[in-house]
Amino acid sequence: MIPLVSSAAIFGSEFLGTALLMLLGVGVVANHNLPKTGGHGGGPQFINWGWGIAVMVGVYGAYRTGGHLNPAVTVGLAASGKDLATGIPATASNIAIYIIAQLCGGFVGAVFAWLVYKKQYDEDCEPALKRGSFCTAPQIRAYGWNCLVETVATYVLVIWVILSGYTNIATVTTADGVEQLAGSLIGPLGVMLVIVGIGNSLGGPTGYALNPARDLMPRLAHAVLPIKGKGDSDWAYSWVPVVGPLLGGVLAGLTYQIFW
Amino acid sequence: MIPLVSSAAIFGSEFLGTALLMLLGVGVVANHNLPKTGGHGGGPQFINWGWGIAVMVGVYGAYRTGGHLNPAVTVGLAASGKDLATGIPATASNIAIYIIAQLCGGFVGAVFAWLVYKKQYDEDCEPALKRGSFCTAPQIRAYGWNCLVETVATYVLVIWVILSGYTNIATVTTADGVEQLAGSLIGPLGVMLVIVGIGNSLGGPTGYALNPARDLMPRLAHAVLPIKGKGDSDWAYSWVPVVGPLLGGVLAGLTYQIFW
Amino acid sequence: MIPLVSSAAIFGSEFLGTALLMLLGVGVVANHNLPKTGGHGGGPQFINWGWGIAVMVGVYGAYRTGGHLNPAVTVGLAASGKDLATGIPATASNIAIYIIAQLCGGFVGAVFAWLVYKKQYDEDCEPALKRGSFCTAPQIRAYGWNCLVETVATYVLVIWVILSGYTNIATVTTADGVEQLAGSLIGPLGVMLVIVGIGNSLGGPTGYALNPARDLMPRLAHAVLPIKGKGDSDWAYSWVPVVGPLLGGVLAGLTYQIFW
Amino acid sequence: MIPLVSSAAIFGSEFLGTALLMLLGVGVVANHNLPKTGGHGGGPQFINWGWGIAVMVGVYGAYRTGGHLNPAVTVGLAASGKDLATGIPATASNIAIYIIAQLCGGFVGAVFAWLVYKKQYDEDCEPALKRGSFCTAPQIRAYGWNCLVETVATYVLVIWVILSGYTNIATVTTADGVEQLAGSLIGPLGVMLVIVGIGNSLGGPTGYALNPARDLMPRLAHAVLPIKGKGDSDWAYSWVPVVGPLLGGVLAGLTYQIFW
Repeated sequence: MIPLVSSAAIFGSEFLGTALLMLLGVGVVANHNLPKTGGHGGGPQFINWGWGIAVMVGVYGAYRTGGHLNPAVTVGLAASGKDLATGIPATASNIAIYIIAQLCGGFVGAVFAWLVYKKQYDEDCEPALKRGSFCTAPQIRAYGWNCLVETVATYVLVIWVILSGYTNIATVTTADGVEQLAGSLIGPLGVMLVIVGIGNSLGGPTGYALNPARDLMPRLAHAVLPIKGKGDSDWAYSWVPVVGPLLGGVLAGLTYQIFW
Repeated sequence: MIPLVSSAAIFGSEFLGTALLMLLGVGVVANHNLPKTGGHGGGPQFINWGWGIAVMVGVYGAYRTGGHLNPAVTVGLAASGKDLATGIPATASNIAIYIIAQLCGGFVGAVFAWLVYKKQYDEDCEPALKRGSFCTAPQIRAYGWNCLVETVATYVLVIWVILSGYTNIATVTTADGVEQLAGSLIGPLGVMLVIVGIGNSLGGPTGYALNPARDLMPRLAHAVLPIKGKGDSDWAYSWVPVVGPLLGGVLAGLTYQIFW
Repeated sequence: MIPLVSSAAIFGSEFLGTALLMLLGVGVVANHNLPKTGGHGGGPQFINWGWGIAVMVGVYGAYRTGGHLNPAVTVGLAASGKDLATGIPATASNIAIYIIAQLCGGFVGAVFAWLVYKKQYDEDCEPALKRGSFCTAPQIRAYGWNCLVETVATYVLVIWVILSGYTNIATVTTADGVEQLAGSLIGPLGVMLVIVGIGNSLGGPTGYALNPARDLMPRLAHAVLPIKGKGDSDWAYSWVPVVGPLLGGVLAGLTYQIFW
Repeated sequence: MIPLVSSAAIFGSEFLGTALLMLLGVGVVANHNLPKTGGHGGGPQFINWGWGIAVMVGVYGAYRTGGHLNPAVTVGLAASGKDLATGIPATASNIAIYIIAQLCGGFVGAVFAWLVYKKQYDEDCEPALKRGSFCTAPQIRAYGWNCLVETVATYVLVIWVILSGYTNIATVTTADGVEQLAGSLIGPLGVMLVIVGIGNSLGGPTGYALNPARDLMPRLAHAVLPIKGKGDSDWAYSWVPVVGPLLGGVLAGLTYQIFW
């Protein structure tokens, strides 16, 4: 029998995981976009692998809670009728703790990424490139179509999460009695590849936010941090990467509940 | 004892899997080919990883039916004397359901990819690049040689599918009693890599269709959808990526039946 | 108790595996080097992933015999005191069968790759690029140093093969009683990554032949096939990618026997 | 009951692993930076995958000791209160043996990489490019910020190492009674991806040393080897990739001990 996970443990797990996600995620775009870094010339593959592995590392950080890191995953799993993770039923209070932890972690991770690239952010550079390391923007601005893109892309992510069952991460006990994740790379590895694939395939129009915590909180960090020559934070677009992913997640969860 | 899978479940599984495959597959070439996307400059690696992961995600979507997604795989497995998947014998009616589901899913997936890139398809662009996101075309037009290439490339795919046994995807039951795919990433991951490898190694002359449902149905979507400035759908070539892959699949199946 | 594997089965397994390896391996360089292909612009990463996956697919093809595909691996395992594979002791006759099968498979695979790219080989192109798709050449010609590079690079490959134990590929029996490779992707996946890594890290000076069957037999194919404008086959260099890898393999095997 | 590992076995394991790491790690940058190699044009992805696989191969080489290869991992595990590896408690003498072996292996690996690229190092080339294949340098020199970057990046690495438990590598016994690593690729594969991800995401400002043995010992090799036109070894910066990683490792270990 798996015991229930406490609220504090849920918060800590999703907070750490999402902070790691955003540290690495904001970092890879900063490495690509900013002047005087080692990452120029990697192109879209460089960025997409970076985001994929950012999610993988974040899932490890949040393994006790199934590594959601994303309100769209959390509400999608709730809509599917499944537990949020092994030992964590989809109650309203658990859902709220997940989402608050993800939002807080997303903000803190973005701040650390800014510290890592502080000297690069101090250099002169096109403001849109600096903002682009924090949050997404559409290639062609058309809010309805942009929202559709985020909905479809997040639908693919969440239907995969539900079908793969990776949020039920297994733990084993080793020869010296320590509980560990041995063997559970499969889940984090799978989600990493799915992120790379969605980035390559569906990321073209909007930069594949897929996740309200990934877009909104770094945008807030961009707005409040003293970044040199940063330009505006494009709040007019900010609702799209919140509404689209939540819609996609819920649709995926409902699809599962209806057809399986 | 594994129970037989119903016709409706077979149809739904292969339909969803192939739709995901073509959404992501058409998507990655659209991202690469069309103007005003984030995916320019990724080059052939960008496209090939995108297709590989498209297959992986599709295999998850169709895990109950072994994730064929491809009539050449289905007829190849039938020719090998194996079951189509665990609990699905290779009867004529099962083969027919697989193929019809794959064709329908391929069409629907292509339509969704077009919706995702709608604003980009509306931009001016070389018609061959727009068509190239839907279906394949040879670098040097020579139908016999092109067909040979598709036959050899699909032979490699299907002999790998048969030898790896990945269509017999395992399910396990977790601590909280939910059936899931834990551990079965190996199969989808393997086929992902095989697709990337075939793309890198044998995709040069014809763009590695490997799959009648992957080429014919998006070509049909290209013909019927109101795509701006789309040019013709190159129906003269359309038989090659149907005949070549089917031939390669059957030859692989027969090789297995004779030598193993 | 695992029964002994017959000579015919050993030959067939290593022949098929090495043929697949060389079909995909010659193919990826042809795709990169020749005119009018889809693979231009992928750069060294494109080629190295192609070779890595070529080995992975070949290992699946030869799974009954541990997927050597390479005389340097075979003699290295013999020098280490281990069996060649589960159920295959390292007798002189078994070693001979392995190597003959690898040489035959390497030749046949290269011929098929030439057929796949026949129309591209018919185009005008620098002869060294055409030959480069079949066999390796040094960036700076200095036979002693070139041989050292191949020895060190093959040493890394073979010490990894021995330490990982991947030649003892496991088979399992599925719910419907079919023997398959489920779970054994780990071995082929590992060797794939090791090939990519050796290519990235040690492939710079000589193009990382690592394998007499990979270099000598395609070179022979280059010499005898009617390739348009092919130039000479550079036989003066041909001993380096035979002697270096064999030396590296034996040194790795002896290291293991002495220190473990 | 797992027996204790002897001091000699610990030394040999970490020495071999770190030597393999640095052979491949110095090699990939040499392949990228030096003239007349096959690796030009791969860009940052080429280098980062090379380093990731270098760690993976090194972890296999050092599997008996958990594949640390890095004093920051060793002190981080000690600070976490865990064993250094299965059967190796975190005593002062064991920690010392680990670190001495890592330093020796790092030096020897760099020397072998120099031998592999000897003819290329003999060519004329910007001295900073030659030095850059041995050790890291900041894009913008600011010791405090550079040290912060290395601390954060190593924190991510070590917290992942601790959470994933990969240093407790499992061994199994095959059908023919040989102990091997079957199934344990998961650990080495995971750490490979984490290295690639840290390189893509946090490697921009300083080149992600992450490891005193990786930076200090190749720097020493650069200083003492007779490399043509090598320029100075930038000792002024050398403390940063020692202090930053050690600090990051200890902080990660303490985080674990406090919060888990």
